[in-house]
Amino acid sequence: MGSFRGHALPGTFFFITGIWWTVKCLLKYACKKHKRTSYLGSKALFQRIEILEGIILVCMALTGMLGEQFVLEGPHLALYDHKEGQWVQLLSWHHFTMYFFFGLLGVMNILCFTITSLPTSLTKLMLSNAFFVEVFVLYNHTHGREMLDIFVHQLLVLVAFVAGLVAFLELFIRTNVTVELLRTSFVLLQGSWFWQIGFVLYPPSGGPAWDAVDHGNIMFLTVCFCWHYALTFIIIGVIYALVTWLVKSRLQRFCPSEVGLLKNAEREQESEEEM
Amino acid sequence: MGSFRGHALPGTFFFITGIWWTVKCLLKYACKKHKRTSYLGSKALFQRIEILEGIILVCMALTGMLGEQFVLEGPHLALYDHKEGQWVQLLSWHHFTMYFFFGLLGVMNILCFTITSLPTSLTKLMLSNAFFVEVFVLYNHTHGREMLDIFVHQLLVLVAFVAGLVAFLELFIRTNVTVELLRTSFVLLQGSWFWQIGFVLYPPSGGPAWDAVDHGNIMFLTVCFCWHYALTFIIIGVIYALVTWLVKSRLQRFCPSEVGLLKNAEREQESEEEM
Amino acid sequence: MGSFRGHALPGTFFFITGIWWTVKCLLKYACKKHKRTSYLGSKALFQRIEILEGIILVCMALTGMLGEQFVLEGPHLALYDHKEGQWVQLLSWHHFTMYFFFGLLGVMNILCFTITSLPTSLTKLMLSNAFFVEVFVLYNHTHGREMLDIFVHQLLVLVAFVAGLVAFLELFIRTNVTVELLRTSFVLLQGSWFWQIGFVLYPPSGGPAWDAVDHGNIMFLTVCFCWHYALTFIIIGVIYALVTWLVKSRLQRFCPSEVGLLKNAEREQESEEEM
Amino acid sequence: MGSFRGHALPGTFFFITGIWWTVKCLLKYACKKHKRTSYLGSKALFQRIEILEGIILVCMALTGMLGEQFVLEGPHLALYDHKEGQWVQLLSWHHFTMYFFFGLLGVMNILCFTITSLPTSLTKLMLSNAFFVEVFVLYNHTHGREMLDIFVHQLLVLVAFVAGLVAFLELFIRTNVTVELLRTSFVLLQGSWFWQIGFVLYPPSGGPAWDAVDHGNIMFLTVCFCWHYALTFIIIGVIYALVTWLVKSRLQRFCPSEVGLLKNAEREQESEEEM
Repeated sequence: MGSFRGHALPGTFFFITGIWWTVKCLLKYACKKHKRTSYLGSKALFQRIEILEGIILVCMALTGMLGEQFVLEGPHLALYDHKEGQWVQLLSWHHFTMYFFFGLLGVMNILCFTITSLPTSLTKLMLSNAFFVEVFVLYNHTHGREMLDIFVHQLLVLVAFVAGLVAFLELFIRTNVTVELLRTSFVLLQGSWFWQIGFVLYPPSGGPAWDAVDHGNIMFLTVCFCWHYALTFIIIGVIYALVTWLVKSRLQRFCPSEVGLLKNAEREQESEEEM
Repeated sequence: MGSFRGHALPGTFFFITGIWWTVKCLLKYACKKHKRTSYLGSKALFQRIEILEGIILVCMALTGMLGEQFVLEGPHLALYDHKEGQWVQLLSWHHFTMYFFFGLLGVMNILCFTITSLPTSLTKLMLSNAFFVEVFVLYNHTHGREMLDIFVHQLLVLVAFVAGLVAFLELFIRTNVTVELLRTSFVLLQGSWFWQIGFVLYPPSGGPAWDAVDHGNIMFLTVCFCWHYALTFIIIGVIYALVTWLVKSRLQRFCPSEVGLLKNAEREQESEEEM
Repeated sequence: MGSFRGHALPGTFFFITGIWWTVKCLLKYACKKHKRTSYLGSKALFQRIEILEGIILVCMALTGMLGEQFVLEGPHLALYDHKEGQWVQLLSWHHFTMYFFFGLLGVMNILCFTITSLPTSLTKLMLSNAFFVEVFVLYNHTHGREMLDIFVHQLLVLVAFVAGLVAFLELFIRTNVTVELLRTSFVLLQGSWFWQIGFVLYPPSGGPAWDAVDHGNIMFLTVCFCWHYALTFIIIGVIYALVTWLVKSRLQRFCPSEVGLLKNAEREQESEEEM
Repeated sequence: MGSFRGHALPGTFFFITGIWWTVKCLLKYACKKHKRTSYLGSKALFQRIEILEGIILVCMALTGMLGEQFVLEGPHLALYDHKEGQWVQLLSWHHFTMYFFFGLLGVMNILCFTITSLPTSLTKLMLSNAFFVEVFVLYNHTHGREMLDIFVHQLLVLVAFVAGLVAFLELFIRTNVTVELLRTSFVLLQGSWFWQIGFVLYPPSGGPAWDAVDHGNIMFLTVCFCWHYALTFIIIGVIYALVTWLVKSRLQRFCPSEVGLLKNAEREQESEEEM
């Protein structure tokens, strides 16, 4: 993990997951708005998509877990070195644990949409658990490092915490597109921030890392973090435009007449629900 | 920003916005209480007002952003000085970022009330985001300054945090006049506190700033902050009286008879809803 | 305030208020359970009681405010001593401000139950505001004091904070007897803890104060705080028994027959609502 | 308490309670899903079980309280040693207080399910109070100890805090199997973590305690805590499988025909409620 690649990998995972969740959430929202009649038909489809998502999540987590264990200087599943009387590569075990809980989320996704008697809110619970475990491990992760290193990891802790908090809140409230988008925005932010950490601590150009004790760097990374966050909203906006255009264009090809009539009535109803 | 004017400008912006939101919220409440029948008619009006509000918010944010960049000693859009190997005017970039997120709120206001398929709760989300970004930036803003300077900015962080929290809660609960007034009270408090900071750190009279290491000043500013807060309630009370009087007097001129009959029945219904 | 009497006064105020709120809350609950039919009749009565409560609150707050200002060594409304160039008696002004916000709560109580167009949830808001202002002022109150002094005040801050939090939550949820009792238990705890502070810091027997740097005292006050809390539950339990007995005995005298029939049906309905 | 046995005892109590609550919660869930018709019949049964649970809780708490007081080096109910002018065995009084509040929970359980006019949500309140008191006492418990000792107790504080928070949230929301399982998972985690503390600080093998100033141990205990948490989910999963199998097999023996017909209809309804 202590390398550019070790931060780019989870960054990419989070970014892809974030984009996918945004697409899924907006697709559901647009479908619900434009063709409520055939919504039940697509429910089975969404169920299969959820199972596929679970499988992909498990694969991602396994990649990360195996990568942490069996890279050249990894712990190779050894936990305690009895000869030297010390723990082996605990930082790798930290990362392993974090990947493991995201793997659990994937497993729960598969189980919940396969076994119908399980409540689907368990996936939300595991998601929030995975984020909170990430927060907990990262919080105890940077002991004895430089100020800049601690700062960028603290921001990661912050974004994982709010993501976990929003996922936890979703347990209690009915599905709400705004809250779901808020969560995906934090997932995207986490992905792009992992890349930023890689660039700051292990510049891929081979140049020296940023000055770890210059307070100017921390001042800059503060605003940089906000700009990353603004970027996630632009990404979500673009996805929204694409998804809306796609759903509209496909609908108008197949069933232009009835939809036009339904749309206005539904819109009003929706907007009242939003109030 | 490091001047009286730099604190009076955002203070005035927040104060005007706070007063306007209080008026809007109480007008809606009074209209709902007194003439439910013609309420739907004024809905289109409120929608146009929201768009106008968005435009004004964008203008305010642009004023602030351009002001921060192009004042005499501003960064003029330069971020990194390669010659000296250091960041350019990061404090101005901090302020720039905060104004930017309030600008985003204005843009979202315009979009949500123009494109009907967007849920209006997105404006609440952007509002809470703007406050939380302000909290985040201000929290990392006062490194290495004097005790008094840090204290007055911490109070600003506190009030922006609770304002953001209330706006975030409004995402989840149905519209409630009490909670909306709570939010506007924090916006007003933020406005008046910006002025107070200006007076404390950069006295416009040209006299010396307050003694930054005297703990008596902090003890006084603690109660002063509470008195500012009490003041916002008096302002809201005065606005409430004015708005109620206005709505009542205009109603009695146009349609005195039916309203009188309706009022009692509605009041009881309302009071039960409040229970 | 820096005396036994200065802590016994607010302690007594909080204790009386706590007992009164417990009685009121349990009386409402018992009335609702046993004679739903005549509940509307007693609504007007409860309204008059609320106004009376507001007046008493205002009187209590005025007593405290005037006491703080016009005791022998008080500030006598002077805020800044221009001769000596320092603030006058800021601690008294702190207490003054706390009393002032509880006075505002009384004023709001009177206004809300006199002017029917005001939502009654405003009283809850002012209550939570009064507690939070108390937290804020007390938090900035004990600068430079001894460890023990800070600790006992921190516990006061803690209990005021949770009381404020519960009052704030009551804004959002429908009336719930359990949550109301939780709030009153914190008010009672605050009252008895004020007395405890008086005994610890200014022993009325005239003996020396407790050793302020002995950590054993802090360890003891930790469990002592918990026992105070357990005591509040015993007080609430006794009040519950008395109120239930009172309501039952008075009911059985006047209308024993119908109530007996209604009771069972209502109880089941209630218990289902509780589920 | 300062021994392996002193940590194994509460650990066993929490673990048994956690397993029992999981079984109860899943049994209720499975019964509700599979045989709604005879649900009301089992309601009286569940009520008797609750009373029994209360009695067992009281017994557990009494065991702990008496054990703390009357072990060889315990305080034997003495609080202050007037000869030496110091408190007697305050740590034992801390543990005593924590057990006492769990005993109160048992008493409230008995009262709430015996006296029908008491709202059952009071047991939830006492549960959350018991956890928060535990948090409060443990937080002020480890003054002046070694880093490792403080760390393992802080994790206990963390898990007790989230358990209390979830129990507190259950006051406000309708019964939800996911949230109940979350709570029981924290109770189980607390139980197994008490055992872990015993092994770390007082190895039962008689060997030396872990190195209290080695930061590697803290890094390991961080991931170890997460693995304990993962373990609780495996335990809950196994209990879920067993309970579901039990309810299904017993049902199919007695009334296979109607249940089969009802099941599908109910499942759909349930899954819609979950959405």
